[in-house]
Amino acid sequence: MKAPLFPAASFADLNARLRDLPEFDEAAAAAAQARQGQLTKPPGSLGRLEDVAVFMAGWRGKARPGIAHAQALVFAGNHGVCAKGVNPYPQDVTVQMVANFKAGGAAINQLCRASGAELAVVALELDRPTADFTEGPAMGEAEVLDAMAKGAEAVDPNADILLLGEMGIGNSTVAAALATALFGGAAADWVGPGTGADAAVMARKIAAIEAGLARHEAMRQSPLATLAAFGGREQAAICGAILAARMQRIPVLLDGFICTAAAAVLEALGVGALAHCLAAHVSAEPGHARLLEKLGKTPLLALGMRLGEGSGAAVALGVVRAALAAHDGMSTFAEAGVSGA
Amino acid sequence: MKAPLFPAASFADLNARLRDLPEFDEAAAAAAQARQGQLTKPPGSLGRLEDVAVFMAGWRGKARPGIAHAQALVFAGNHGVCAKGVNPYPQDVTVQMVANFKAGGAAINQLCRASGAELAVVALELDRPTADFTEGPAMGEAEVLDAMAKGAEAVDPNADILLLGEMGIGNSTVAAALATALFGGAAADWVGPGTGADAAVMARKIAAIEAGLARHEAMRQSPLATLAAFGGREQAAICGAILAARMQRIPVLLDGFICTAAAAVLEALGVGALAHCLAAHVSAEPGHARLLEKLGKTPLLALGMRLGEGSGAAVALGVVRAALAAHDGMSTFAEAGVSGA
Repeated sequence: MKAPLFPAASFADLNARLRDLPEFDEAAAAAAQARQGQLTKPPGSLGRLEDVAVFMAGWRGKARPGIAHAQALVFAGNHGVCAKGVNPYPQDVTVQMVANFKAGGAAINQLCRASGAELAVVALELDRPTADFTEGPAMGEAEVLDAMAKGAEAVDPNADILLLGEMGIGNSTVAAALATALFGGAAADWVGPGTGADAAVMARKIAAIEAGLARHEAMRQSPLATLAAFGGREQAAICGAILAARMQRIPVLLDGFICTAAAAVLEALGVGALAHCLAAHVSAEPGHARLLEKLGKTPLLALGMRLGEGSGAAVALGVVRAALAAHDGMSTFAEAGVSGA
Repeated sequence: MKAPLFPAASFADLNARLRDLPEFDEAAAAAAQARQGQLTKPPGSLGRLEDVAVFMAGWRGKARPGIAHAQALVFAGNHGVCAKGVNPYPQDVTVQMVANFKAGGAAINQLCRASGAELAVVALELDRPTADFTEGPAMGEAEVLDAMAKGAEAVDPNADILLLGEMGIGNSTVAAALATALFGGAAADWVGPGTGADAAVMARKIAAIEAGLARHEAMRQSPLATLAAFGGREQAAICGAILAARMQRIPVLLDGFICTAAAAVLEALGVGALAHCLAAHVSAEPGHARLLEKLGKTPLLALGMRLGEGSGAAVALGVVRAALAAHDGMSTFAEAGVSGA
């Protein structure tokens, strides 16, 4: 068992601990691939279901992995940049939606029930929004590390797969800021309507990001400093959860634009920290497809969803379950007495 | 209750009965759409899940439809055109795979279990392949109508949704022949590798279709005669099942290239016979995307699958279940005390 990543004393301390992440189990994956070639179907005919089965085998370290326990984590945070009018909804909605999650009334509750995931919601100091990133760093180093640790702690070590989602009024602006800072291009290339911004709100989103980029020019040299400059607590918690899952070899289903932008911070660290993550879907938020391309991830689903909350991840869990059901349950040509090609 | 479509005495008789198919319930769909606008999410943010919920509402005739019973039907047939060397697998595999379905060892068994569909397999005179369509019509009118009736009879009137699939060595050639006959273009535009044809087998597929098209030039004036010229019994049974589902207002999930090519015969009748059908996925078989475009259907999934058996439909059922779970189970803004935009 490797030493835990959190708590970490500093960004430098955390960076040092990330040099030795658990790797994909090539032997288990090869055994899974060999099994796929013997099952009663033309080779490759289950397409991505075969890839997903081999992926799961490699990360779980067994040729025929199952999903006894799927965990869905939704992290919620509030954002100082809302002062700049970047969202049509009042910021109170973050608290209201957390209550809705806890009462079982949101989309993610139904979608987790439909696909068999256990949902936990982690609200991160909703009464204390991060600082407005147009006026200073959104968070200090200790705040980022604390939120990352909270994300890591929330991961159930007994989970066979982890679904990640978020809620936070204003956080599509935070995500677009992170994407612009990490990958370059104009803010307008990464900004989308989010929960339903009109042209005026879109212009305010772009202006806020441009102001933040100008202010934090120096901080953008390091991915974790970029997260501190722009990110909310839920983005940091997502990063912490992804890393904790990796330490336990738990594969992750990333949700939409905001979740993926948070994950991109880890990718930028250059240690292959997202190798155990699948892109659940590509959302209707226009920056998401571009972001997935930068990360080299092909989404499982493209259903025009743009809700967040982990909703796309919950639907994609059904595809992963299908992949493993076929992989584990099918007969081989020999077992079934079926002639090969 | 409308009069049953089958048994039908002739193609002309069946055509006459198709002029009065049950239609989409606009009132139920409007009620579902109105509900979607009140649920705790930005309007439209569940993307195609919202469309699917409204589609299901319109066909089931209720604002909040459920899926208590999902039926999957796999029809199996054998094809005289296999004499022309159009498939790398021996034709015995059709019988062997039916046994595999019945024993629970095939992909479709696992995928139905994963998504909660009840599978029934209907083998259609496997010991009596249809005639080789390069030498004469594959079936006579009575044979087509008999297979259609068998397909119709297999539909459970208590199903809330019907998944359709097929098995039949050689039937990707049959499907490409139907598509070429119905939509035009060169045979080579519609032919793909199927279960794994190499260049020589592909050339034989194209040659067989070209020979069949030349021989049945006159029969191609009528879609049902085209089905008789080229089709197998499983294609006819799929048509019968689609029509029987329509009479009961049961929505249908079409599977891949072969299933969709069979359905295209009904579309060509010009009576909107596929309005209650969703394209479950777009397969890796290259003609499928083109076929879906001709039918104006956007697939729910694109996972590179190309197995048939109803496998794509079974995976897509998970998406439909997710759509209805969100639609039925979510709280409205008023119920949850969440502020709107």
